[in-house]
This record gives sequence, structure tokens and C-alpha cells, in this order.
Amino acid sequence: MAEETNDLFDSSDSVRSGKPLAYAKTAVFPGPITLTTGGVLPEVTVVYETYGELSPQKDNAVLIFHALSGDSHVAAHNEEDDPGWWDVLVGPGKYVDTNRYFVICANVLGGCRGTTGPDSVNPETGKEYGMHFPPINVADIVDVQRMLVESLGIERLLAIIGGSLGGLMALDWGVRYPDSVSGIAAIATGARMTMQALAFDVVARNAIMSDPHFYGGEYYDKEEGPSTGLAIARMLGHITYLSQESMNKKFNADRNVGRKIDTSFETKFSVGSYLAYQGGKFVERFDANSYLALTLALDAFDLGPDRERLISAMRRSMCRWLFISFSSDWLFPSFQARELVDAAIAADKRVSYCAVKSDCGHDAFLLDSESDMYGSLTDSFLHHLSLDWQHDNPERRDQINADYGKPTLQAKDRVDFDTILSLIPPKTKILDLGCGKGELLLRLKERGHDRVMGVEFEQRRVLECVENGLDVIMSDLNEGLKSFSDHQFDFVVLSKTLQRINNVEIVIDEMLRIGTRAIVSFPNLGYKKYRAQLAEGYAPQTDPRPDKKWYNTKDVRYLTIADFEEFCHERNYRIFRKVALNSETRQVITHRENEEADVVVVVFGS
Amino acid sequence: MAEETNDLFDSSDSVRSGKPLAYAKTAVFPGPITLTTGGVLPEVTVVYETYGELSPQKDNAVLIFHALSGDSHVAAHNEEDDPGWWDVLVGPGKYVDTNRYFVICANVLGGCRGTTGPDSVNPETGKEYGMHFPPINVADIVDVQRMLVESLGIERLLAIIGGSLGGLMALDWGVRYPDSVSGIAAIATGARMTMQALAFDVVARNAIMSDPHFYGGEYYDKEEGPSTGLAIARMLGHITYLSQESMNKKFNADRNVGRKIDTSFETKFSVGSYLAYQGGKFVERFDANSYLALTLALDAFDLGPDRERLISAMRRSMCRWLFISFSSDWLFPSFQARELVDAAIAADKRVSYCAVKSDCGHDAFLLDSESDMYGSLTDSFLHHLSLDWQHDNPERRDQINADYGKPTLQAKDRVDFDTILSLIPPKTKILDLGCGKGELLLRLKERGHDRVMGVEFEQRRVLECVENGLDVIMSDLNEGLKSFSDHQFDFVVLSKTLQRINNVEIVIDEMLRIGTRAIVSFPNLGYKKYRAQLAEGYAPQTDPRPDKKWYNTKDVRYLTIADFEEFCHERNYRIFRKVALNSETRQVITHRENEEADVVVVVFGS
Repeated sequence: MAEETNDLFDSSDSVRSGKPLAYAKTAVFPGPITLTTGGVLPEVTVVYETYGELSPQKDNAVLIFHALSGDSHVAAHNEEDDPGWWDVLVGPGKYVDTNRYFVICANVLGGCRGTTGPDSVNPETGKEYGMHFPPINVADIVDVQRMLVESLGIERLLAIIGGSLGGLMALDWGVRYPDSVSGIAAIATGARMTMQALAFDVVARNAIMSDPHFYGGEYYDKEEGPSTGLAIARMLGHITYLSQESMNKKFNADRNVGRKIDTSFETKFSVGSYLAYQGGKFVERFDANSYLALTLALDAFDLGPDRERLISAMRRSMCRWLFISFSSDWLFPSFQARELVDAAIAADKRVSYCAVKSDCGHDAFLLDSESDMYGSLTDSFLHHLSLDWQHDNPERRDQINADYGKPTLQAKDRVDFDTILSLIPPKTKILDLGCGKGELLLRLKERGHDRVMGVEFEQRRVLECVENGLDVIMSDLNEGLKSFSDHQFDFVVLSKTLQRINNVEIVIDEMLRIGTRAIVSFPNLGYKKYRAQLAEGYAPQTDPRPDKKWYNTKDVRYLTIADFEEFCHERNYRIFRKVALNSETRQVITHRENEEADVVVVVFGS
Repeated sequence: MAEETNDLFDSSDSVRSGKPLAYAKTAVFPGPITLTTGGVLPEVTVVYETYGELSPQKDNAVLIFHALSGDSHVAAHNEEDDPGWWDVLVGPGKYVDTNRYFVICANVLGGCRGTTGPDSVNPETGKEYGMHFPPINVADIVDVQRMLVESLGIERLLAIIGGSLGGLMALDWGVRYPDSVSGIAAIATGARMTMQALAFDVVARNAIMSDPHFYGGEYYDKEEGPSTGLAIARMLGHITYLSQESMNKKFNADRNVGRKIDTSFETKFSVGSYLAYQGGKFVERFDANSYLALTLALDAFDLGPDRERLISAMRRSMCRWLFISFSSDWLFPSFQARELVDAAIAADKRVSYCAVKSDCGHDAFLLDSESDMYGSLTDSFLHHLSLDWQHDNPERRDQINADYGKPTLQAKDRVDFDTILSLIPPKTKILDLGCGKGELLLRLKERGHDRVMGVEFEQRRVLECVENGLDVIMSDLNEGLKSFSDHQFDFVVLSKTLQRINNVEIVIDEMLRIGTRAIVSFPNLGYKKYRAQLAEGYAPQTDPRPDKKWYNTKDVRYLTIADFEEFCHERNYRIFRKVALNSETRQVITHRENEEADVVVVVFGS
């Protein structure tokens, strides 16, 4: 589905046209194999490729699921080899480093690139399955991959990575084979197809099935198959892979200039020529019956049709989760990833989420230009999965770290951090709102808290948290914290962030719903220096950076210790601890706090 | 394109199935008529309907353009009549009140509901035009409507209203017949199709033209026409008329439940059944060749392919403009309306814009549920067009107001308004940022300024401005003011809004770019009461409403007069006038302003 370049006719998805896969291996599983739909297959052949070496501990296997039209060739095996569809991500020294990981990628059941599908010959009849290929579910696709992984002697995968429709398969594995995978990176995907995406699939299938050369699926021995319908289906697909922005970038300069290409489709506009070309190329390498079988399986998939059942599904998972979405993706919009993230949080799972800012639409997950975020997130996620697996094996951990060779963040010293740490009892569960790159969380982890989590709005900071092995959710505090369950954490911390929040009341209400105790720290406007500034006729400058003045500071809320106490009093919040600090002298203030302290840390509850 | 109810199979667009239009009239224009494409038609027949009475002054004619699949029957003529496609908007006592206005709606050239189109019989051959129907442009569609309007003895229309593709036609009229229309309401439309919308049209046309029963367009005498292709085109269209939200609302409850309907299309999912039903109904009443001719005309339309040429086009217009977009419309997204608005502003035209918040997608413009905003905006717009037309005829104005019978806002007294008014010389051009319901602008208009304009973020306030006959743009100040040209206004006013803006520097830079002088008023944090509050240990409460405290005020910037002077000094802004006020005593303060004044008005420039 990728569009690597601006060239009208280039698409990494169309690199190959049914060429043989030189490095592909084949596994045959004898049947009969009964599917979840009730259908039976006499045997199943799986075509797959592997990269790198399985470690003696068998703790470095990564399974990648391809999307609708992909195949086993996720990456080139060497410089002479054909390009792979995710060369950006997978290879020696790349984000999924095949020098470190053993990568497996197989063509899916129902596909048309070697693994058993409608165009395979049924050994019982000696003819292609065609319309006799049984209906399949995502679960059947996953089960076949599971058979393959087991046949390779792997009991537990380090990770599964799935983008787009491959993400649905990864989700299915995560909840049905929870003990056989340490972590799942689900990219540009959702718990189900949106109604809009489902509707597009319906139209695509109608185009195929109403093609007069479809012959009810029995076209293999005919002179012509449903290539017009399949091409139209593919054109539709291509529109959904792009965004308004990326389409403009690609086609606006010569909008009304058609291309002379050999096609019976309309080529009046540049975008029309592109669609005609892509549609035409697709039919050379893809089988219409596979398109029907796979889209029907995917359209029927639903990890949980409502929040409750989605949480219930996620509860069964045992892995760490990484969800990545892209802001301009409208095939799998960010709200879908967020649904999954919310369910994982509610199910008390370890989960990170980044909504990557991108103009590239759904295709973003395959593009080099966007890999700085999605690639780095995946890289760090895999690394920390490796460390987690070996948590009781310091030697192996050291070796993993040495092989990785990237530095990790040192926990930082900040005047209110010591105080906050001193107020938090050991082994408690902590949520840090506006966690930045995770400095406080790191210090908590070092101290032995193992359920710590952050919420952060800046994408770069979210990546830094993941690099530090922390669980972090990219989210705007002003939009609420409804993902979290009542009293899911012991402490919810808002350190030096209260003054930057518009919806103070909502955030504080939420903190007390989610946590048993809330901890806030904020600059005290009552500090004598600030009083003096106003007495001299100027607005107090609470932002410590000298270039941050009234017009450009991110601080939008101004309050004194007395204001906060009044606020708590009015709402019947009980203040349990209050530590006033002077950050200039680094001393705790116990007298005349509202004048002598410039920062205060308050522990309160309802 | 409307979806009036939640019923899966109801759609106001599909109310009729080619039934005769009982009240339709016919006008025949003899040819030969040469089109802008070079094609020639031997004659043109126009089928149209009218509602209400043309006034003796001929100053109340409103022309409505229908969208792709509409027709002349915009509204029912009486209770027995078939429903019209815009009954919500048009009728006696409705938003477009046919007791007051003379409404005209005609089937467009190239259509298939009576007006000459591909399915009409060519008088020269005695056969349907079919593939011999000449290509048409939007300009040709508009020219035919212009002929109709002239034939009715109308030299100048009070207004044109066009939604969706009808909006493109309205835009074309506005720039090519500028002196023949007072105002144009362009709803859910754009200067051109987006690349995405164009791509969907390409796929739809490919589906029609690759249908084996298309016969190159010569299917009228065949047993079967390209009904499969046309149905698929319509299915695609229906997806683009809805939004993610509205599709979910319609189809999620019974997502996997198909309907038993008589169709050869897929009906597995509820949305699939709906699409199959809509596709099937459409082919009963619409002609595939019309679909091709009209979409090609509309896809080729471009009011101006870049900002410069769009401005140049808008410059030729002489009317007032009202643009309305809907937040969840992705067929004509709000950014497209905004492009038009920006061009109209840059061309110094009178223009208002509202981006209506709605979950209903493109269909919103036809729905009863959303008419409270788009209907009321149109209603007020028409009323003030009527008043403008009669600006030198007080008697007729009084009569128009009496007929209308709705109250208008009284200009409001606010302590800083008098001061601001006293600082603005007569006849100057004023832009008011954060104008609310337009109280200051109204006072300026009363004083005789005729180029006054507002920018406002709250949709309800935007409507109130339009009700008051003001030009207003719905926009977020924090997102900049790039629509406006350098020194387009003499004064740019930001009254009691500075303290609510995050991006102070950007907004002030923009004010000085757009205006020759800037005027700001803001609460002075240096006021003695505020100093005393902080001295007592509490944050100053600058918001005058007692329930607005540090945690819930919309004020996010705190500054004293001295701060603002320093800010201007640092940036080399020159302060020309400064009026400090005490709003409690309502006095002008001339000594110790930074302590004694709680509000200040500053006139400055670069």
C-alpha cells in the first residue's frame, strides 16, 4: 500500500509483479484441517521467509503479519534480492535489526502468493479451489501462522508486528495465544474495520462479483477473469491508503493532465491515470477470489464490539502492547487505536501509544519519511521486550544492552522530584500526567515500583519514554482521562503541569477518580518575589526561563498555595501532606509558606 | 444526498422515482446554442419550478441550484404535492420563506429530469443524444439557468443558493454574472473538487463505462443499460455523503445483519444492504450518461487553482457572500470553504463564514437536524440582502423589516466601547477580532462606517452577527489571520480578548500587518485591587464574574499596563494613544494609571 516517492507511477506495493520469491520456504501441514467457519481444508501449504538467526535461548523471534495485498517477502535478503515491502523497517542494522532478531513473515491463508488460497490446487480434485475454497476467519489465518511458528520450534515469540489488516491478525493472536508472545506492536489498525472502511470493501466486492468474467469465482480456466472488477476494487483501495494532503502533493501540479497508458479506464486527470495504472498492475499479481476471501475475513473480525467486550478481550492478553496511529490515516483513524489503548489500560495491561503526526494517510506506516517515529518506537519496544524477558538474567541483559549499544536516559534531579518520591510509599502504582521524557517515572522504577505509567502530549517525549522502556500514552490532558478506571492507580501525579492546564477542574476530578491519592506540584504565585514583581507594576514571572514572559509562557493558570487550599476546601478534598519548597535555596519551608516557597507539592484525596 | 432519518432504507434523496413533476414548467430556447466546450445543441429545454410571487420591484427572486442527482422540485407546492428535496429550507414561513421570496429551481443542463441532457431526444435526429451529447462545462449549466432567469423578466437576483455541486454553479455565476445577483449562499462546497473527491468520481465513471451494458453510451434502445455500474457509482457516492459518525449511528447496532432485499449485490452487512438498496433505487430514476456528463463538468470546474487566481476570480464578484461548511463533511471539507472565504476577504468582498459543528457529514446541508444553523444563517442573510438592496428606500426597508418581524440586537454599552469609538476616526475600515455578537461593530455601523467586519470563534455568536447584518468570519484567532491582506483595514480591534489568547505575539504581529493601527483593551493586572489580592496571598481575579476563579476563567494571559508598554518598546511598536479606565467609577485615569486603572485601551502601530 506504500507510496514511496512522488513519482506518479511508483508504488512500493507494486514493486514485484508475481515474480518468484527466491528465498521463500515452504511448510506443508497435512489435514484435514477444520476451520472456525466449519469449512475443511485437506492440507495447508505455507510459504514463508525468515531473516537472521534464532538465538539459542529462542528469545528473539519476531513474527510480522502482512496486510491485504502483501506477502512473505517483507525485506530483501541481500543486495541482489528484490526489494521487500517493509525494507524500511526490517534488515541488518535497521529498526527491526535482523542481526539481533529472527524475523518470520508468511503469506496468509487465503492469499495468492504461495500459501493455500482460492487459486491453489485442491489435492483432492486436482483443480483450483475457486468458489469451493471455504470461508475463513482471521482466527484461521492466525492459527495457520501459529502452526508454522510451532513447527520452527518456537514456543514464545518475542514480538508480533502487524500493520493495517496485519494489525487485526496481531490482535487476534494476542488474545487467543496470550502466553506465546511477549509484546505486540499494532500499527495503523483497529479492533475492527470502521463502518466506512467496511462500506468501501462492500463496494469493492460488488465490483468484482458483478464483473461478467467472474463466473461465480470459477474463472481460472477461462480466457478472461474479473480483472475489471478487481482493478476497480484496487482503485478504491488506493484512495483510502492516501490522505487529502498526500493526494494533493502527488497530483495537484498536473491535475488535468492525463497520462497515455495502455488502459481501458479513464485517464483524463493525473489521479485517474494513476488509479488506472495501479488497478491494471494489481490484477497481474493478485487473485480476485483472494481479495474476496481476505476482505470478508477482515470485515467480519471484531475484537470486541463495544468498550466492555473490548476490555474483556484485552484482559485475556498477557503481552506488552505498543499502538501506533497516524494523524491523517482515515482508513484506520487514530480514534480506533485509542479505543484499543483505552481497553488495554482499563484491563490493566502494559501499553504504550503514540499518535504520530503525519500527512501521508494510511500509507504512512510503510514510508521511509515517517519511519523516524514508527521505526524508532518499534525498535525501542523490541529492545525492552528483550530485557524484560531476561529480567532475572543480568548477564544476558548486559549482553542485550551491549548489542543494542544505545544510551538510555539518566534519571534527572529536580527539586520537587525528591519531595514527590519521599511522599510515595514503596511498591505503589503510579500514573504521571504530563510525564515528559519520563524522568520521575524512571526514578520510581529504579526504586522498584513496577506499575508506573505516563501520559504525555508531545510526540518526541513519548518516543523518549518508550526508549526508556516506560509505558506511556500520548494524550491531551485537557481532553480528559476517561481511558483509566476508577482507582486504577494508588497515586496520580501532576508535577509542575497544573499551571499549564486549561481544564483544571476536569483533570483534578479525574485524578481523584483514577487514583486513591493525587499529588500536584505547582509554582506558588504567593512567593515573595512574585508579590514584589506585581508591587513594582509588572506581572509575576512564574516560568523560570528568563525568556518566557506573560505573552509566551505556557503557564496559563496562576495560583497561590492559599488558592489551592481554598479550592480543596470548597470541594471537600482532604489535603494529607503539603511540602513547600524554595527552589533557590533548595530548602523545605515550614513557616509563612505562601510567601517563602516558590514551589509546593500537595498530596490530597477525596 | 440526504439521510433524513435513521431508517436504513429511507433517504429524502430517493423520495421520488422518476414520478412526473406536477408543478413543473417548461421553457424552450431555440438554438443553435454553442457551448463553452465547442459543442452545439440545436435547442435547449429547461424544466423548472417556481414558488411564491415575484415582487413588483422584482427584488425578491432567489435561484436555487440543485446538486448532482437533484431536480427542479426543491420543495412541495402544497400538502398534497410530493416532498421536495429541500423542504426543510424552502416553503411558506420557512427559512427561505416563499411568502416573501420568489424561488426558482430548474433541472440542470445535462440532467435527466426534463432539462436537455443525454437522454433527451435530439430534434435533428429523432433519437436520444446518448454519446452524441456534447461535453458541457459548469459555465454552460449556468448560462442555461441565466437564460431562464432573464426569460422570467428578472435582471437581478436577490440571491443564489447552492449546496454541494450546486455551490460550484453558484460560484461560477457569482464571478461571471456579478452584477446580476446581490448575494450568494454557497453551502458545503468548494472552489473545485478535492483530489480525493475527484478520484472517487473517476472510479464511479470507470464502473459505469466498464459495465458491458454501457455500449459506449448507446444503451437507450437496448434491453439492459449499465445499471450495475451506475449502482456501484451511487454506492460510492453514498459513502462520501456520510461521515464515520453518521455511518456508525445508522449501521452499528446491527452491523452484521444483512437485509433480505431483491438485489444481486452483497447484503451481508447492514451497510451493504443499505448501499445495495440505494444503488438499486438510483438506477430507476437516474441516467448513467447524465452521471458521466455532470460529474465530468463538475470535476473540470476550478474557480482558481491557487490562492492568487482564486483571489483574482473573487475580485470580479460584486455580491455579498455567505459560506457555510460542516465540520464532519469530508466530500467538501471546511478547508475548502475557508479557501473561498480567504480569497473573498483578500479581494475585499463582503463575506461571512460559519463552519457548523455537525456529525452528519456532507448530508448535513439537507438535514432538518442541522437546519437550526444553516437555515437561520441563510434566512438572516436573505433578509439583510433585501434591506441592502433598498438602502435608499426607507419605506420599503420598514416594510421588509415589518414583514420579517424578528427583533434585531441593540448595540450594547461597555465601558471600553465608548473609548474605542472615540479613538476611531469616521469612515475608517475596522476589523474586530473576537467580536462576540457584534456589539462594537453595530455601534460603528450606526456611526456610518460601512466597511466593518468581525472574527469570532463561537458558532452561536457568528449566527448572531449574521442576524445583525454584519460580515463575520468564524475562526480561531490562535490559528492566525492569514486570510487578511496587508493593511486591508485602518484599525484592527482586539477588545478584552488579548488576555484570552495563547499566541499573543502572532496575533499582535498579524494585527499590525492587517491594520494600519491596532487597538487593544485588556484588564490591567497592576490595578490596586489586584495588587492587594496578591498581597493578601491570593491570585488576582481579573475576570469580573465572581464565579470565574484561577481554575475556570478563560483568561490565560496576565499583564499590567507597564508590561504592555515594555512589550511594545521591545518590538519598536509605537503607542499613539493610551486611555486608562476605571470601570468601577467609569472614569478616565490620567495619574498612576498602572495602579488606578483596571482596564486600558491602547492604540499602537509599527
